[in-house]
Parts: sequence; C-alpha cells; structure tokens
Amino acid sequence: MNEFDLIDRIVAELGPATRGASVLVGPGDDCAQIDIPPGFDLVSSIDTFVQGRHFPAHAGGDLVGYRAMVVNLSDLAAMGAQPSHALLAMTLPDIDVGWMDAFCRGVRKACIEFSCPLVGGNITRGPLNISVSVHGLVERSACLKRSTAKVGDLVCLTGDIGGAGAALDLPGFMESWTLDGLQNLVPGDEGFAFRKYYLPQPRLAYARKIARLASAAIDVSDGLLADAAHVAKASAVGLRIQLESIPCFNGVPAKQAVVAGDDYELCFTLPEANLDRAQTLAQALNLPISVIGQVIERAEHASGVQLYDGQKPVELAFRGYQHFAGDNPV
Amino acid sequence: MNEFDLIDRIVAELGPATRGASVLVGPGDDCAQIDIPPGFDLVSSIDTFVQGRHFPAHAGGDLVGYRAMVVNLSDLAAMGAQPSHALLAMTLPDIDVGWMDAFCRGVRKACIEFSCPLVGGNITRGPLNISVSVHGLVERSACLKRSTAKVGDLVCLTGDIGGAGAALDLPGFMESWTLDGLQNLVPGDEGFAFRKYYLPQPRLAYARKIARLASAAIDVSDGLLADAAHVAKASAVGLRIQLESIPCFNGVPAKQAVVAGDDYELCFTLPEANLDRAQTLAQALNLPISVIGQVIERAEHASGVQLYDGQKPVELAFRGYQHFAGDNPV
Repeated sequence: MNEFDLIDRIVAELGPATRGASVLVGPGDDCAQIDIPPGFDLVSSIDTFVQGRHFPAHAGGDLVGYRAMVVNLSDLAAMGAQPSHALLAMTLPDIDVGWMDAFCRGVRKACIEFSCPLVGGNITRGPLNISVSVHGLVERSACLKRSTAKVGDLVCLTGDIGGAGAALDLPGFMESWTLDGLQNLVPGDEGFAFRKYYLPQPRLAYARKIARLASAAIDVSDGLLADAAHVAKASAVGLRIQLESIPCFNGVPAKQAVVAGDDYELCFTLPEANLDRAQTLAQALNLPISVIGQVIERAEHASGVQLYDGQKPVELAFRGYQHFAGDNPV
Repeated sequence: MNEFDLIDRIVAELGPATRGASVLVGPGDDCAQIDIPPGFDLVSSIDTFVQGRHFPAHAGGDLVGYRAMVVNLSDLAAMGAQPSHALLAMTLPDIDVGWMDAFCRGVRKACIEFSCPLVGGNITRGPLNISVSVHGLVERSACLKRSTAKVGDLVCLTGDIGGAGAALDLPGFMESWTLDGLQNLVPGDEGFAFRKYYLPQPRLAYARKIARLASAAIDVSDGLLADAAHVAKASAVGLRIQLESIPCFNGVPAKQAVVAGDDYELCFTLPEANLDRAQTLAQALNLPISVIGQVIERAEHASGVQLYDGQKPVELAFRGYQHFAGDNPV
C-alpha cells in the first residue's frame, strides 16, 4: 500500500466526516474549498500531538484520533466559534492499517459529534506525529479573546478539573482502553478518569451561548494556573483564584488540580451582572459552572495569578506543563 | 528558555510577517481571527516537512523556513488563490536559538514576499517535524481544480523542471548554503540547481491571472508524471505528454525531469482558444510557459498519463516519489 492508496482508504473510512454543506471541494485536490457565509470572521488554530508526550504509546488509534480532534476543537470553543473545517497532517513510521482504521473511527466520531468536517490532510513517513489545524466561524462582535478581561469581572470555570491529570497516575492507565469502552463509563465508575483524559469534551455549545456575556476566555489545556496566567498577561490584569471554590474531580486536591492539564474545560471571565444568565444557559446544557475567583488589578506577582485558600495567599512551586522542561511525559 | 519564551521570541523575529490588514487577532490567543471579505471562498491545505526526507539534516534554518512556507503556498497557487494566512506547528528535539532565529528569517521572508501573514502556531518537543497550514481566498468562479480538465485542452507547464531534483545529485548539495548566498545565484551559475531546490517560487501571481482561462491545475511537487496522473484521475481523462516539449533544467534529460520532484511549477490544462492570452499574461510576469501535451480520452493506461517521444509511446519504470516506498530519501 502506498501513500495514495492509504489516503484513499482514510477518506473512505472517514466517509461522512469529510462532507458538509459548506464543503465545496473536500479531500483530493491541492486545497479544500470552503464556503464562508457573509458576516463571519474565520478563526484558525494548529496543534501537534507527539506519541509519548500527548498520548501514551500504547493508546489505541480510536482514542488518539478522537482526542487529537477534540483537543483542537477546544481552541475554537475558547474563541466562541462554531467549527467550519479541519485539516490533518500525519507523520507515520510505517503503514499499520488496523491502527489507522481505528484512528479514522475516532476522528470520524469527533468530526460528526462536533460538526467539523475534515476536508484535507497529508501523510509523510517519519516518527509518529499528528498535527491538526482547525477553523471556525465567529461573528466579530461575539469573538471571545484572552485579552479583554476587566477588573471586577468574575472568573468562572465549566465542569471540573484534575480528572485527566489523575488518570495518568492510576494503574489502569496502561490498560488498552477503547473508545466504546470508555464511553460506557459514567461518573463514579472507577475508570471515569480515563474517560476524562481520552475523551475530553470541548465546550463549543456553551462557549457560543456566552460569547456576548463573557469578557474573556481560554480553554484549560496546560493546567488552570498556567492558562489563567495567559489571560492575566494578555489582559494586563491580575486573577485572584480561590482554591476552595475550584470544582475538582473525585477528591483530587485543588493544589494538584490547578497544575494538571488535559481537562479542556473553559475558563472565562464575566461581568457579575451576567452571571445569572450564564448559569441559566449552563443549566440548559446540563453543564455545571463555578465562580472560582475575580479579576483584580495587575500586581507585581510573577504570573498575574494569585491563588488563595480563603483569605490566605498560596504559592505553588510547580505552575503547569512546560514542553521543554524535560518533565511530565505521559 | 521555556516554550512560551521561545514563542515570544519567534513572534518578535517574525515581526511584520505576523501582521496584515485582515489579521484581527494574530499570534497569542487560542486562535487567530481573520477578516474574510465577502464574495470569497476559503481554500485550505496542510503539509509536513520531515528532516532527512523533505530537507537535508545539514540545511540551515533560513532555507528550511523559507522552503516550508513556499512549498505550501504552491498549493494555494494550484487553486488560483491569493494567500490569506498561515499557521505553523513545529516539533523540536530541543531549543537551538540560533537555528530558530535563522528559521524565522526564512519564514518571514517568504511570508512577506508572498503576502501571507503567519498568524499562529504551536511548538512541542520531539523529533524535528514542521507542519504548515496555509489558507487563501478565491472567487468561486475562479477556483482552479484538478477535476475539470477537458478532452482537447492543451497541457501546459510554467518554468522548467528537473532542477531541484538535479541538485540532490550534485556534490555541492552537502555545502552549507544560505538564503542570501543562493539568492545571488542566477541561471547559468554552477549552484543554480540548489537555488531551484531550496527556493522554489510558487506561481501565485500567474495562477490568479489564468484562473478563469485554465480548465484545471496542479503544482508539480512529486514529479510531473505523478502529479499529471492526479489531474488525469480526478478529471477522468487521459493526458498525452510529449517528452521533447518539456522544458528541462540545464540539460537534465526529460525522462529524468518528469520523475523529479520539488520544482513547484504549475501544470495546467487550457482550452486552445485561451493560449494566446495565457502566453501574454506569462510574458508580462517574465515567466516562460510551454505547451507539453494534450488532454485525451481516458484510456486503459494505468496512470492516465501517456508519455510520447514524438509519435513513439515511452514507458518509465519509476513514476514519482512515494513516501512509503523506502526509496528517494533526501
């Protein structure tokens, strides 16, 4: 099987996930061609997944494929955008048709669940590496940014954090989970942390609903503390975050949860006057949201984020995942 | 230096290459935000560059950066699009600031030369791997595809081919060329083949001019024979190509040039009635174009492309670069 046969097979496996009303030309030409409706801006992002760093070497293709897509879609959620299309570039050491078919099942499921057609890609030979570029549509007046948090706004968080990070330390992490197996797990099940890790849920629907209510947003990928610091820096504000207000997964200590990555919840700032409406919209989606702090004047604090336990400031030595620090491999 | 410091440095080095009138949000948020003017469709592509396969391990960062960008921009040319924006995902084994600065110089030069702002990206740790996603704008009635060649059309080619491929076999290939050094070379210079390899010129300007004249197009990346076969397959036609009509670089035999990749010239099909105008437009850009064959009915021929030397059919054993065939490393 050569690369062109493999691409034909991938496109066939993805099936309906490569198509959509706005897809004028899908996989198979030099570029895909996408209809952009008038009145929308495009938002664009790219992210890479490296075996042993962003997913464990033993993970099944279906989980890798699903996770690669949803983690990227989470960046669209952080802008309040609706997905328009995605592109996938893979570097593979060799052609393992079984793994690739499973990978395609995972990608297809994510694309269909979140209405994001995969319209093109590229395959080359080399150490396993997956890059996904995602694109979305947003009305200019409803684009969520990191740079627009205002002093006095509340800091809010969807769902809970720490679950994906906890999964890495549980013995069952080395098991061969499958997408179907994880999907059957519910909160309270022993393996639910693995579902949190492998199948994070980008908060696309909620982000679009609050895009005009919230003042700023980011998705929590590297850990709440690190990601909140990006908002603080971009907005030139401080964020005071109360550890006791943070919703943590299944008994994970808050000090651990704030430096654990991979949860892909949405951290957003909100004028207090909009809180009731934001809560009502969350309830309609059956999504818990929590107020975890407040936007304050920017102080001299190194990261712009100050953790508190009640009225007591808290300092943590480790502040989030760093790709070149040599720590924290999967 | 951690990844965030490195990203800050890259954005600073890229400078004006990250900005543009249509860039509403550039690097630094979860996504970039781009103004899409009404009346245009978006075209999108992604491509990956692996060290030792798409560029030699000894190549300077400036050449790798420039080449990674222009090779992708060539896919926009093949659609007749004008660039709108690009995203860059890099996997690096470690942080080599000198190499990275050089890489940024090359990227910046390409972005500015071809008016394509680089609006976002991602850096992770792992074996060196570069993925670039490029996006462009095209009016729906002026989008060039592979699938619309018509029987009777002429097959045309910009520039000449075989130069980039010839470079790989010349002893000077192992020298440490620099972007500035290569730019000073002119046709006839001994090292001009290296300029062809490292600094291919995407035919963006010409492609846009002929987008309504041509019936189909593809850029020549894997070799004319392989790429022409994609047009033949997508259009369900045959292509008869005359070896003696192919403009070859500096004495490279046509049989060798048609299976050499990396030239990034534009191969397009054209109703004969449009030839005069296509030639006039090419002359205005000082770009030679050649008629190299004709679109014929699809025959039983395996690839859809039939080479001729005058009236004599020619068969070649090797038909183009294949990523998983284990041959043809850089």
